[in-house]
This record gives sequence, C-alpha cells and structure tokens, in this order.
Amino acid sequence: MNSIKKYIAEAIGTMVLVLFGCGSAAIAGSVLGTFGIAMAFGLSIVAMAYVIGNISGCHVNPAVSIAMLIDKRLSPKDFVGYVVFQVIGAIVGIALLAFIINSADLGGFAVTGLGQNGFDEASAVGLSMIGAIIVEIILTFVFVFTILGVTDNEKTSAIAGIVIGLTLVFVHIMGIPLTGTSVNPARSLAPALLIGGLALQQVWVFIIAPLIGGSLAALVYRVFKYDKSENKA
Amino acid sequence: MNSIKKYIAEAIGTMVLVLFGCGSAAIAGSVLGTFGIAMAFGLSIVAMAYVIGNISGCHVNPAVSIAMLIDKRLSPKDFVGYVVFQVIGAIVGIALLAFIINSADLGGFAVTGLGQNGFDEASAVGLSMIGAIIVEIILTFVFVFTILGVTDNEKTSAIAGIVIGLTLVFVHIMGIPLTGTSVNPARSLAPALLIGGLALQQVWVFIIAPLIGGSLAALVYRVFKYDKSENKA
Amino acid sequence: MNSIKKYIAEAIGTMVLVLFGCGSAAIAGSVLGTFGIAMAFGLSIVAMAYVIGNISGCHVNPAVSIAMLIDKRLSPKDFVGYVVFQVIGAIVGIALLAFIINSADLGGFAVTGLGQNGFDEASAVGLSMIGAIIVEIILTFVFVFTILGVTDNEKTSAIAGIVIGLTLVFVHIMGIPLTGTSVNPARSLAPALLIGGLALQQVWVFIIAPLIGGSLAALVYRVFKYDKSENKA
Amino acid sequence: MNSIKKYIAEAIGTMVLVLFGCGSAAIAGSVLGTFGIAMAFGLSIVAMAYVIGNISGCHVNPAVSIAMLIDKRLSPKDFVGYVVFQVIGAIVGIALLAFIINSADLGGFAVTGLGQNGFDEASAVGLSMIGAIIVEIILTFVFVFTILGVTDNEKTSAIAGIVIGLTLVFVHIMGIPLTGTSVNPARSLAPALLIGGLALQQVWVFIIAPLIGGSLAALVYRVFKYDKSENKA
Repeated sequence: MNSIKKYIAEAIGTMVLVLFGCGSAAIAGSVLGTFGIAMAFGLSIVAMAYVIGNISGCHVNPAVSIAMLIDKRLSPKDFVGYVVFQVIGAIVGIALLAFIINSADLGGFAVTGLGQNGFDEASAVGLSMIGAIIVEIILTFVFVFTILGVTDNEKTSAIAGIVIGLTLVFVHIMGIPLTGTSVNPARSLAPALLIGGLALQQVWVFIIAPLIGGSLAALVYRVFKYDKSENKA
Repeated sequence: MNSIKKYIAEAIGTMVLVLFGCGSAAIAGSVLGTFGIAMAFGLSIVAMAYVIGNISGCHVNPAVSIAMLIDKRLSPKDFVGYVVFQVIGAIVGIALLAFIINSADLGGFAVTGLGQNGFDEASAVGLSMIGAIIVEIILTFVFVFTILGVTDNEKTSAIAGIVIGLTLVFVHIMGIPLTGTSVNPARSLAPALLIGGLALQQVWVFIIAPLIGGSLAALVYRVFKYDKSENKA
Repeated sequence: MNSIKKYIAEAIGTMVLVLFGCGSAAIAGSVLGTFGIAMAFGLSIVAMAYVIGNISGCHVNPAVSIAMLIDKRLSPKDFVGYVVFQVIGAIVGIALLAFIINSADLGGFAVTGLGQNGFDEASAVGLSMIGAIIVEIILTFVFVFTILGVTDNEKTSAIAGIVIGLTLVFVHIMGIPLTGTSVNPARSLAPALLIGGLALQQVWVFIIAPLIGGSLAALVYRVFKYDKSENKA
Repeated sequence: MNSIKKYIAEAIGTMVLVLFGCGSAAIAGSVLGTFGIAMAFGLSIVAMAYVIGNISGCHVNPAVSIAMLIDKRLSPKDFVGYVVFQVIGAIVGIALLAFIINSADLGGFAVTGLGQNGFDEASAVGLSMIGAIIVEIILTFVFVFTILGVTDNEKTSAIAGIVIGLTLVFVHIMGIPLTGTSVNPARSLAPALLIGGLALQQVWVFIIAPLIGGSLAALVYRVFKYDKSENKA
C-alpha cells in the first residue's frame, strides 16, 4: 500500500527530470549553452529531493536504484517497482515535452530532437561507441559514488539534495558534448522510444553503461564504508 | 497589528522579486542570457527568504499563498492580505523599474519591455495559448510542490530559502523561451498593467494557470504528507 | 590587541573582494560576461566569510559596517577601525590588480579599466546621476537588509556566508549594466583613486548612496526585528 | 592498513578533479566559456568531498596537504603518501582524458591541449613568469586559507565541501585567462608530463607557487586561529 506511493513519487520525480532536462536541451539549448542545460538537469534533483526524498529517496534513475540494491538499502521487489515507475515517469515527461514543442512555432529556434543521447554521428564531438561506453561508466560512477556517500551520513543528509544536484550538473558539464550525458537509463530510453531511428539503435549503450557505472560505484563504496566503521571502532 | 507587518514584508519581498527579476530581463537580458535572467529571479528568493522568511514565510507569490491556504498553513484572512500586498509590492517594483529605465539612455541595449509574460507572438518560440496554460500549470506545480515539501520538514528549514530559490531558477531555465515564466500572478500582473496592450490582454493566463498549478501542488502534496505520517506510525 | 586582528581580517577580506571582483571585470569581463563577473564578486564573500567570519564578521564593506553600527552590533570605535582597514585593503587589492595587469600583454583582451563604478557616459546604459543614486540605494538596501536578517538567526548562521555571497551575486546581475554595482564605498574608492579622472569625480555617489542604503536597511530591519521578538512573547 | 585506503581515496578524488576539470577545458571549453570551466573544477570538490571527505579529508591537492602538514592536521608520513597518490591519480585522470579525446573526432571543436597551465605565450593574456608566480601564490593563498577556516569549525563542517568547491570556482574565474589556474601541483604536473614541451618547461612555476601559497595560508591562518581561542577565553 505504502509502496505504490513511493513508486508514484519516483514516477513524478523522473517525469520532472526528463521534461525539464531534455526540454531545456531541446527547446532552449541554443540560448542556454552547455552550462545552462547542465543546470536544468541538476536542479531537477535539487527540487525533487526536497519533496519526494522523504517518500522514496528520490532515485529517479535506475542506475541509482541498482546501487542502492547492491548496498542493501533497497529490496529486490522495490528495485523492480522503482525502475518500472521511473521508466513510466520518463515516458510521460517526454510525451509532455513533445506536446509542448508541438504547441510552439519554433522557427527561430533549432529544436535538437528531444534531448536524446548518442555516439558516433549522434555525438557533438563524434565520440566512438567504445568511448561512449567508457565515458558513461565513468560519469555514472562519479555521480552514484557521491550519492552513496552523501546519503550515508546523518550530518550531511539535510544538504544531500543540493550536493547530488550539483554533482549531476558536474557530470553534464563535460559529458554534454561527448554523449549528451545519460548516467540514467530511464532518461535515455524515453526519448529514444519516441524518436526511434539512431537514438533507439544506440540506446542500449545508455542503458548498460550507466547500470555498470552505478554497480561499480556500489562495489567501490563498500570498501570505503567499511573503512569508515573501522575509524569509529 | 502584527498582520500588517507580515503584509508589508510580503510587499517588500515581491517588490524585490519583480524589480530585480523583470529588471534583469528588461535591462540586461541581452548580456545575461537565459540562465542569467533565471538566476536573477531565483536569487531574489534566496535573498528575501532569509530576512522576511521569519516574518511572513516569504511567499511573495499568490500561487504559493493559495497552496498554503489549501494546506491550512495560512488563514483565509491572511491569504487575502498577502495577495493584496504582493500585488502592491509588484506594482511598486515595476514602477521603480520604469523609473530606472527612464533614467538611462539605452541606445546600445535593447530594452525588451518590462519582463512581461506572453504567448503566441509574445512568446519567443510562438507557444500557443493552450501550450502556455499547460506549461504554466506544470512549472508552478513543480515550484510550489517543492516549496510545500522543503518548508514542511524541520531538518531542512535552514536551507529552504536556497532550495526554493534554486527551484525558481530551475523553472525559469526551460520556461523563459516559452512564456517568460510567470508561476506568479503578481509578478505577471504588474508589468501588464503598466504596458497594457497584448500583455494586459494575455495576463489572465498568467493569473489563472499559476493559481491552478499551485492548487494542484497542494492537493498532490496532501497524499505524500499523509504518507509521511504513516511512516512515522 | 584583539581589535587589530579583526581590522587586519577586514583588510584581507576587502583586498580579496576588490582584487578578484574588480579583477574579473577588468581582465576577464569579455570572456566571463555579466553573470560571471557577478559570481566573482559574490563568491569572494563565500570564501572569506568562512575564514574571517569568526574573527571580524567579514563585513568587508563600510555600508555593512554602518548598518551593524546602527543595529548596535558594532561599537563606534570598531566602526572607524573597520572602515579604515577596509579602505586600506581595497587599495592593496587594486594595487595588486594593477601589478597583474601590467605583467600581462593584453593585446587580445580589452581591459576595461579597473572595475570602477560610474554613471552618465561611464554607465554601460548611460544611467543618470539621480538614477545611479537611486539604484545604489536600492541595491545596497537589499544586500544589507538580507545580511542583517541572515546573521541574526542562530539557525541560519552556518549558511550565512553562502546566502550573503549569493545576494551579492544577485545585486550585481541587474546592477552591472547600470552602475557596475558598488554597494560598497571601499570597493569603489580604491579604483577611483588609482584611475582618477571621471571615476574619481563620480566616486562620491558610490560612497554616499551605499551608506544611505545600508543605513535605511538597518532602520527598516529594526521594525521586523521587534516584530520577531513579539512573536516569541 | 587504513592509510592505503586514505591514499586511494586521494588518488580517486584527484583523478576526478583532473579528468573533469582539465577535460571540460580541453573538450568543451569553447562551448562552456570561462565560467563553465571554473564550475567543472569547483564541482569536482563538491562531489568528492561528500564521499571521500570522511576517509581522507579530500585534499586532492599537494598545496592543501602542505598546509594541513604545517597546521599539524596531517603527519609527515601521510603528507608523503597523500602527495604520491594525488600525483598518481592526476596522471590516471589525464590518461583517461587523452583516451576519451582520441576516441572522438573533434573536427568542429578546438581541443586546447589537456588543460595545462602556462605563462608568457602559454597564457591567454600573455602574463609574465613573475606575474604568474605572484598570481598563483595569491590564488592558492585564498583557496587554502578558506579551506583551513571552514574545516576548522564543527558548525560549518557539513557545508565545507560546498564552500570549498565554490572557492575553487572563485579562484578559477579570474585565474583562467591569466594562467589557466593551477593552485594544485598535481593538477598541473599530469598534463605537463603527457604534453611535454612548453608545458613541461613551465610546470615548475605551478608546483612551487601553489606550495608557497598554501604554506603562507597556513602561517597566516595560525594567527587567526589563536585569536579565535582568545575570544573563547
């Protein structure tokens, strides 16, 4: 009973992330620049963490949920529920974005798709497939590693939403020209489903690599976590 | 007796929001860009929350006040008082902005009105009326939903002003090219009254849609709020 | 004995504010843009507040010190000491900046003076003298009003440095095209002394108006302060 | 046994700083601008402080470690260990960056080296060697002085990572056009080793000057630290 509220919270949060993040890239990219788009993605976490954080933890990202599963902070059942509702939320977010774009007359603005991720000719710098996999593993590792640390400390729990949001900004700054920065399978799947074509063909990279990066973060974090308890002893 | 001080606090805060937010768009928009204007609106909340927050809660926005009314944190009498003084403050802010612009010789700068909101030909991307209504409902929902959450938790109350300010930045990043981002009837009414014409004809959208968005946020928040108390039980 | 350490702290803090703030405007203005310069001024407070805040309160600004004097948080003797050392620090900061600029070959960069403030032909938008006085009174009022609030509350004291820094960013965003934003007599006096000419002729505006704005903030704040204690009763 | 975990934490943190900081400058500099690059460097600290801060203190910089050594918060043995692993981490970060750049086809983007520091013809504004030494001493002094203060106060320890990150942004804003901003010998050594040539010939400045700046910060901080304990007495 309580679970469905958590799942809906994840759906709302992921919807906001995808609508505003991808929407800023698609609609306002040319006037925002790389840093402005990075801020749109990051601030979605700042906003959502402080309203759904108490309900579901505000993962809004299967790569975060898999790390929480490995770190034993999320049950296998809830992992499945979270991911399903994250994907649903992401699809709703992209559908809303498509509706908004269709309600506009974007003559003077270049709509650059729906914020989809890509490599090779779909990367602004022509990053290769292998390059994209490595980049997404690294970006997700850094993002999720920070999340695991900042949420695991009572002292920093009040500011965790700000820190996680700024870290999402951080991994977008360098990542946008490379792959558009996924670090989140749900965020990548939704635009790929709507656009199809190259975005859909390439989307497996942006599902697999973030899940690997998030899992690696959980494994490396375990070492540092044990270390912390040693310090206390 | 005490109420009038709260109302004056709301007037001062809304004046600062409108003067600096609309002023940045009108005077410095071309050198600031979309992100810089978004920051001007958002930082007005950071500044004001830490000085009038203790007095009135720093709503400075009828869409926030209606949500607080629905959430039973504001009395009907104070709701009316807040909204009246928010509108007065917004008008004083726009009058000061008009005075400043008239004191300058803006040859090299394109003054783009007084930061008014708009749709159709008044939207940078030609967003339709229906599109503008949907966008403003969504933007305001996200903004007010976050406010309800972050102010309802003793642990995060010290940083609430920063979180709310960053969330206002957030809803401006994507919203500026669409409608100019209202999410605040008082902020939209004041420039429309001074400019008249199209801005005044369209202003009803930026009064109604934010009030709907704020009310929806309060209704949805109620579900998550009850959930939170269940967790404690 | 203890006082001299406080005064030296104020001199160091003001030196950093002036060197980095004016330096960013002078050296990097063309690549930073208005928002980047605003951030340089604001982040000087974030940096300095957390190291000299415990010593002197990190006023680094006579307009802040006059408000603290009026609010009875600073003795008349310390007010004089603070202002003298703030001015000394500002002059050292500008001298360092002049040295750095002279050590460079700024062919490709347009050095725009030393970050001095101005009106009429010295304002990017040709703001009149009266306009500049009104603008500086308003900007300083908002800045100092926030400082008085956020430093007067034990709960927000840990984040006060961040809030004050962001508020200084805030008053620079709209203010840079108007007057260059002073809100600080020491910050304006130092470049005017080195540059002379128009900057020195106009500097009285940027000494008087911020002192008026800071004093007004202290007077208005008194009303809200009393209100706060009523709430407790 | 515990030490090696601290050292590995320093290596990971420095790797992230160098990969993302230098990477943003090298890959995305033209679309990010000076402020965006400054944010990439600064946010690396925000991210890393909240996950390795509890383990090693997140120095990720020999200039910080030398100050902590002088301030007796780091043993001579750990100082050596920290610096060795910081350099190793920085080299791994640059190697990853070189791999990513080689995986891309940067036709439309101007890769500007690997984010190396420089003076004379290697400085965007042609800053002289003496100028570069003075600038790096000042930038590092300000950065490390703030770190010493904010980490020395239980009340601000939760937000120290944010303050330090913003201070690193701060010293990059003015510093990027001057020297590219080192303030960190490990961050400068790694790209110089890979690039060789002028970067390697000049790198001694970016090793010596930050170490002097960090040491000076520790010496000046001692005065203010004693002052603080006097206040308590």
